[in-house]
Amino acid sequence: MHSNDKENTARVSRRDLLRTTAAAAFAGVASGAPAETGSGKSVIGMNFQPSEKPRMGLIGCGQRGTGVLGEFLATDGVQVNAVCDLVRDHALEAQAKVERAGQKPPAVYADSETAFEKMLQRDDLDFAYIATPWHWHVPQALAAMKNGKHAFVEVPAATTLEDCWKLVDTSEATRRHCIMLENCCYGENELMVLNMVRDGLFGDLLYGEGAYLHDLRYRLLSEEKSEGLWRRFPHMKRNGNLYPMHGLGPVANYMGVNRGDRFDYMVSMSTPERGLDAWREAHVPKDSPKWKEKYICGDLNSSMIKTANGLMITLQHDVVNPHPYDRINLIAGVKGIFRDYPPRIYLDGDKPEEWQSIDKYKAKYEHPLWKKEGENARKMGGHGGMDFLMAYRMVECMRNGLVPDMDVYDAAAWSAPGPLSEESVSKGSAPVKFPDFTRGRWKEKRGWLA
Amino acid sequence: MHSNDKENTARVSRRDLLRTTAAAAFAGVASGAPAETGSGKSVIGMNFQPSEKPRMGLIGCGQRGTGVLGEFLATDGVQVNAVCDLVRDHALEAQAKVERAGQKPPAVYADSETAFEKMLQRDDLDFAYIATPWHWHVPQALAAMKNGKHAFVEVPAATTLEDCWKLVDTSEATRRHCIMLENCCYGENELMVLNMVRDGLFGDLLYGEGAYLHDLRYRLLSEEKSEGLWRRFPHMKRNGNLYPMHGLGPVANYMGVNRGDRFDYMVSMSTPERGLDAWREAHVPKDSPKWKEKYICGDLNSSMIKTANGLMITLQHDVVNPHPYDRINLIAGVKGIFRDYPPRIYLDGDKPEEWQSIDKYKAKYEHPLWKKEGENARKMGGHGGMDFLMAYRMVECMRNGLVPDMDVYDAAAWSAPGPLSEESVSKGSAPVKFPDFTRGRWKEKRGWLA
Repeated sequence: MHSNDKENTARVSRRDLLRTTAAAAFAGVASGAPAETGSGKSVIGMNFQPSEKPRMGLIGCGQRGTGVLGEFLATDGVQVNAVCDLVRDHALEAQAKVERAGQKPPAVYADSETAFEKMLQRDDLDFAYIATPWHWHVPQALAAMKNGKHAFVEVPAATTLEDCWKLVDTSEATRRHCIMLENCCYGENELMVLNMVRDGLFGDLLYGEGAYLHDLRYRLLSEEKSEGLWRRFPHMKRNGNLYPMHGLGPVANYMGVNRGDRFDYMVSMSTPERGLDAWREAHVPKDSPKWKEKYICGDLNSSMIKTANGLMITLQHDVVNPHPYDRINLIAGVKGIFRDYPPRIYLDGDKPEEWQSIDKYKAKYEHPLWKKEGENARKMGGHGGMDFLMAYRMVECMRNGLVPDMDVYDAAAWSAPGPLSEESVSKGSAPVKFPDFTRGRWKEKRGWLA
Repeated sequence: MHSNDKENTARVSRRDLLRTTAAAAFAGVASGAPAETGSGKSVIGMNFQPSEKPRMGLIGCGQRGTGVLGEFLATDGVQVNAVCDLVRDHALEAQAKVERAGQKPPAVYADSETAFEKMLQRDDLDFAYIATPWHWHVPQALAAMKNGKHAFVEVPAATTLEDCWKLVDTSEATRRHCIMLENCCYGENELMVLNMVRDGLFGDLLYGEGAYLHDLRYRLLSEEKSEGLWRRFPHMKRNGNLYPMHGLGPVANYMGVNRGDRFDYMVSMSTPERGLDAWREAHVPKDSPKWKEKYICGDLNSSMIKTANGLMITLQHDVVNPHPYDRINLIAGVKGIFRDYPPRIYLDGDKPEEWQSIDKYKAKYEHPLWKKEGENARKMGGHGGMDFLMAYRMVECMRNGLVPDMDVYDAAAWSAPGPLSEESVSKGSAPVKFPDFTRGRWKEKRGWLA
């Protein structure tokens, strides 16, 4: 037991955890098998135990991991005790970054794909931030929780429904949060629009749109490092929306999904695959092993999601064609509509047929988080400041013992359109049902991101 | 027989027509029953018989009918011999409009819902332009063709699949064209983009988007004339995309639908109904009979269409919420993308992440029709000039004995998403197949709108 454990009632011994996990497994809900109903005790509303300086372990010290590490350090609210990467040099770079921030050098775990397991056995970590390639998110998040650590995991949290359930079951069994760090939920516009929605500016909501339209062709096929090493592979195995959460998370928040509504079913359709083939033809040397690869993911995938309350969300994904960056970020109701890229608004009674600037709404609807920390966020600048805001808010929740804004049910629901879109596409756009990861508790209204 | 008949070999006697129709009916294809294969002889590629001054009869002298009448008169290429409206005053206004254009006063048919039948028995009409409420389009188009007249019908041509088939079967049996006057196909941007597509500017095409987002709440619920008298009623009977063709026609042209590709299947989803209820609550006196009405059409309907070649089209419809007018008019391929409202373009190699103006492309890609008649079109101004361009082009095709740019297969295919979206929505967004109205001939490439 770590000496600090007395300060934090939530820090349980590994023996306690094994007991909890075993009990849940016996009841059949922690096995990872899909279970629409089960005896898993919900983590909805579960607060963090307050902790003056939450202790962090970083798994994945690549571009994203060290970037967000910087944001966490900038909050001056976390103590980084360990860093882990398959590549020792990356881990050492992260270690140096922590030292430069004035902290003692964190322990380094490296050189092996399973180094993270050893790191997670430490008793001086409250949470693990997981910024590894997609296929590592679930095993590492599960390991973190099973070792008594909260798992803060990069996007997408999971890429199969079975894995979504594993995250849910394990979070419930271990009483540890599994939070997908969907940074877009902390964007300046997104939080402002959330305030507008809550103020009733758009009236009863009807539909939203989200997207991930981001030309990654160079990164996927021509970059010989970072995402270039692995992010292409899902395009060889899956045909659907590979990256639904950036567009979906903010819209889900506008609609109060898992807080009075939930995703019910969806349909999905893909275009043929062309973009990666064309880029390879134009840019990849003919003797590259990449010429042996076969890409099967349709360039544009488009999906429509129906919520239990009847609302509708459309989602698009395209990372292999020329298109200006666009997450759409649209919300519409009976009284008006907001659409991003660039941000614009149209309300009943506005000058007919003309989108309006959002400038005049900014003062009234700026989110308290941005009012308080916007200057620091803009100074840090990661993804327009949303990365800092997200790190700041996570730390705030942990330090003050709050319920986090996002939980494992959101991680599962916002990741699920990945596999569900694949299933629908493979069945000729047939509708497919969302599992109810909350086991019925989506009906409860609750406050969050206030 | 009219004395002019000798000039035009296509003018057949009613007796000939009855024979043709009867023969086709016997073969089971003119009955109106859906028939994926049949013995109907295709009208694909069927040219008009040249006629120096095609003779027009107008059915429906309301706002739209008299508007487009003005466009036809402005071409100075048609002779208007008869006008028809249930309301005599409207018919008389149309008659006066023809006189003001220097033609002899056309015969007036009025006072009865079946006056059009008498008008269509005249022997001095080459085509009927039908601009009546939606539910009259099919019976009037059928009557026109059965009486040896080409039917130029307003949008949507039909609202059921059975009626789509009736139009196809009757056009084939009577050898008369049934053309849905989809004016948006003649828009300046639409024709420019068609030229861009044909020049390969966007590379292999992948997807398109179209929409009809037009706030008609005042017109539907507060206007006590014109469309206010009837356009609300479909909202009480149907839940789907009530008006698919303005968004769909131009995109179908970009993709060469029915000219090498065809619509294969679609899925559709609607939001709840809210907009008309809210408008009524705010604006309609409590003693109005409109308070007895029940609206069932979901405010926003969104659909995804898959083509036989694998391309994808998304379609939206919303006429009962605040939204700036938008038909989207998007086409995207491997090399770039165009999106309208306002028009913008992004091509591989452009300044990254920034939409570009279309200005520098205008000179090169302006469509020959707009080059030739753009000035007149802009002067007339109907829907930005597209109404004049459409009338001009119809007259040009008739006078020169050309094959029209659009035929009954387009009318059927572009109208079909109406009933198909209803079916999909009613089945929880299940995929529904498009009939192949061309009976297999969609595979033939052909030139049009050149």
